[in-house]
Amino acid sequence: MINTRDRDEILISTVIKLIKRKAIPNLKNMIAKTHSADIARWFPHLRPEEQTLLFDLLIKEERMGEALSEMNSEDRNFFIETTEPAALADVLHSMPADDVSDILADLPDEQQEELLKLIKGKASEDLEQLLQYEEKTAGYIMTPNFFAVPEETTAAAATEQIRELVDVEMVFYVYVIDEENRLKGVISLRQLVATRPNTPLKDLMTTRVYAVYTHTLQEEVARVVARYNLLAVPVLDDADHLAGIVTIDDVVDVIREENTEDMLKMAGTGDVDIASRSVVRNTRARLPWLLASFAGGLVAVYVIGIFEGQLTQLAPLAAFIPIIMGMGGNIGTQSSTIIVRGLAIGEVDLTEVWKVLWREFATGAALGGIYGILLGAFGKLRFWTVEVGGQQFVWKFPLVVALSICINMILAATVGTIVPMFFQRIRVDPAIATGPFVTTAIDILGILSYFMIAKSLLF
Amino acid sequence: MINTRDRDEILISTVIKLIKRKAIPNLKNMIAKTHSADIARWFPHLRPEEQTLLFDLLIKEERMGEALSEMNSEDRNFFIETTEPAALADVLHSMPADDVSDILADLPDEQQEELLKLIKGKASEDLEQLLQYEEKTAGYIMTPNFFAVPEETTAAAATEQIRELVDVEMVFYVYVIDEENRLKGVISLRQLVATRPNTPLKDLMTTRVYAVYTHTLQEEVARVVARYNLLAVPVLDDADHLAGIVTIDDVVDVIREENTEDMLKMAGTGDVDIASRSVVRNTRARLPWLLASFAGGLVAVYVIGIFEGQLTQLAPLAAFIPIIMGMGGNIGTQSSTIIVRGLAIGEVDLTEVWKVLWREFATGAALGGIYGILLGAFGKLRFWTVEVGGQQFVWKFPLVVALSICINMILAATVGTIVPMFFQRIRVDPAIATGPFVTTAIDILGILSYFMIAKSLLF
Repeated sequence: MINTRDRDEILISTVIKLIKRKAIPNLKNMIAKTHSADIARWFPHLRPEEQTLLFDLLIKEERMGEALSEMNSEDRNFFIETTEPAALADVLHSMPADDVSDILADLPDEQQEELLKLIKGKASEDLEQLLQYEEKTAGYIMTPNFFAVPEETTAAAATEQIRELVDVEMVFYVYVIDEENRLKGVISLRQLVATRPNTPLKDLMTTRVYAVYTHTLQEEVARVVARYNLLAVPVLDDADHLAGIVTIDDVVDVIREENTEDMLKMAGTGDVDIASRSVVRNTRARLPWLLASFAGGLVAVYVIGIFEGQLTQLAPLAAFIPIIMGMGGNIGTQSSTIIVRGLAIGEVDLTEVWKVLWREFATGAALGGIYGILLGAFGKLRFWTVEVGGQQFVWKFPLVVALSICINMILAATVGTIVPMFFQRIRVDPAIATGPFVTTAIDILGILSYFMIAKSLLF
Repeated sequence: MINTRDRDEILISTVIKLIKRKAIPNLKNMIAKTHSADIARWFPHLRPEEQTLLFDLLIKEERMGEALSEMNSEDRNFFIETTEPAALADVLHSMPADDVSDILADLPDEQQEELLKLIKGKASEDLEQLLQYEEKTAGYIMTPNFFAVPEETTAAAATEQIRELVDVEMVFYVYVIDEENRLKGVISLRQLVATRPNTPLKDLMTTRVYAVYTHTLQEEVARVVARYNLLAVPVLDDADHLAGIVTIDDVVDVIREENTEDMLKMAGTGDVDIASRSVVRNTRARLPWLLASFAGGLVAVYVIGIFEGQLTQLAPLAAFIPIIMGMGGNIGTQSSTIIVRGLAIGEVDLTEVWKVLWREFATGAALGGIYGILLGAFGKLRFWTVEVGGQQFVWKFPLVVALSICINMILAATVGTIVPMFFQRIRVDPAIATGPFVTTAIDILGILSYFMIAKSLLF
């Protein structure tokens, strides 16, 4: 057993060789032995014509549906664009409804409708149902294929039914419903196995069920599943009817996706597609997020302009701009990352704003004090005396840089804490609000306070 | 059904009221109705004496073990420090071995040994076994309580055994082993239920099993479970004996933990404990990470010092330092975050270094070009002409700022891409290596190139 990364590399280099040699039987053999999740990882390394060859093989081997669920958006779109409608419909038919809806939702409306027309029967009904839910809600990610039985069913009868199931992939819970399809309770498969055969389920079931609604955000679904260690969570519609379930393997994907989004938002990259190799799309996603920083920089030009007189008289002032900005930026990023992440995983919450704010403020003061002393000492050694307008200063210049970095670090830690908490309070995603905006605000505050301190002490 | 956050707030305010009134029966009633994962969230909002009251109640209600597994490290340590050994031993005895080892591993060696002495019998053997594994490996997070049977066992016999299990919490897979405890195959509980009773398991089992070793890193364990949609993964020792399993609920915790770590590393906060409210610990964790930025800032003081002559002659040069640094920093953070995250989720890998590097370089050039033109235009409008040593410049100053921001953005995107990929190649965690180091390197490069361009064009 070697690790997944090394295995990926070995598999990929073998596949590339086999494709170059057009060794179809060997490729078929490899496909048969390889998990679809691994196969999906071959595509980014292949040329378009090699991808097409592999698509054809996978369709022939009836593995394309599975592979499509696991592929990245770039490769998936290439498959959808280049495959003829009939073959595409067959592939989509072989996939679970929630995976198909996931793929369709990524496509432009027009293409979505075209594909929906290709898919017929029950599959299409399920799909249209799923597609009506908002993106990133429980309804959108749930599967409508679950296993539910009436309260009077006995354990033996339920077991018998499980035996006959085809469509339902992962059964770990048996949901118990009333005549109107309202959720009454739940039993784990383990409990079902462990019980006497003729016990009715209503005597076995747990009635305290953790459930979510179709409109519940996927983030919250993940929180419920993770917190209560569930393997699946039932999804109810507004009339409390059981509409579907979200299984933990999908929750794992949601958690990864939400984490990726949070990191990218904090880095100010917009909804960039990591898998995409397109420079144009990458540029377009990132361009607007740099605007905050750009606008902030322009403001800084004016702020420094106000102090042009001081700068001309005392050039070393300019030399300390980067360190004061940099340290403020770094401690601000530390604080805002701790807060954004703490809010996301529930280790920081809004009932303790003052405690957290105090901790960050005090930490800012401690770190600011330490680095202030260090920078003051450095400032003294580097510029033993400075001269402003004929006057000699021995201690005031190091005092200016020491005070400035200290005050800026306190400000930065405080702003980095307040901004995400404020956004959480007004129910705006703190991650999106934090990244470039906090950094830019801190830059301007830092420069302004630096020059004001310098002006009042030295000029 | 209200969302977890709002419910937390309501529960917490009720608990605080009940504790203040010492309304023990109501509290007991509330504890009985509440999931331990929710109870664990009450502690950060209580005073020490209130926490102690709740600890006592939970011990009486036999819920303290569950709650302890779910509590944050701060509150957990408080419980361990303030509870007398005998009561503590009882609580630890009620918990699964993997949860106890998790708690023990966080404690200083001395305290760990003391507690180990309190725990006796099989529990203590299991624990000592688990504690011998390195932190953050499969051995460390696995549970030794799994369900395995010999190949000749029939479906009916296996089902009968499941009925009698007490210790094994979540059974979804039955592992099949040979006489030497080597893993031969696996059957899902669903398959077991669906089969004819007297079929021997060896005719039913899947022999292609995804397994990990005790020394496999937890990150890789999470990758295997997530990629192959497993509910649990078997863990083998070096002689291929089945030693334990890691279940998906623990993998969910690992994924969250690893993501938190990555975000904190990139923000340069060290291993800060988000839940801790201690200013001293917070300061100590963050202090060293700010050193990189501090050292970089000192270098910048020297770099700008070299160009003091130019700065004195042309003060507006200083005004553009923040925007050139800020834009470089931002685009560098964008690139490094995309790469670090891409590497973590497998959407970027080292076999495509050149493709990715080209995309980031080209994106840097596109964005640098756009913002270069904008900054040039601004520079022209803000400073229509500049005078250096009696000479008037009409176009060269805007050209300097435009070129500088453009080159700096290209450099930053490139450095932000190369550094994490390089660290991944030499098997150092790219997240830890990226944050403050990349930002600092980009700052210095940006300032240096800016002044060099200015010097060569204007002086």
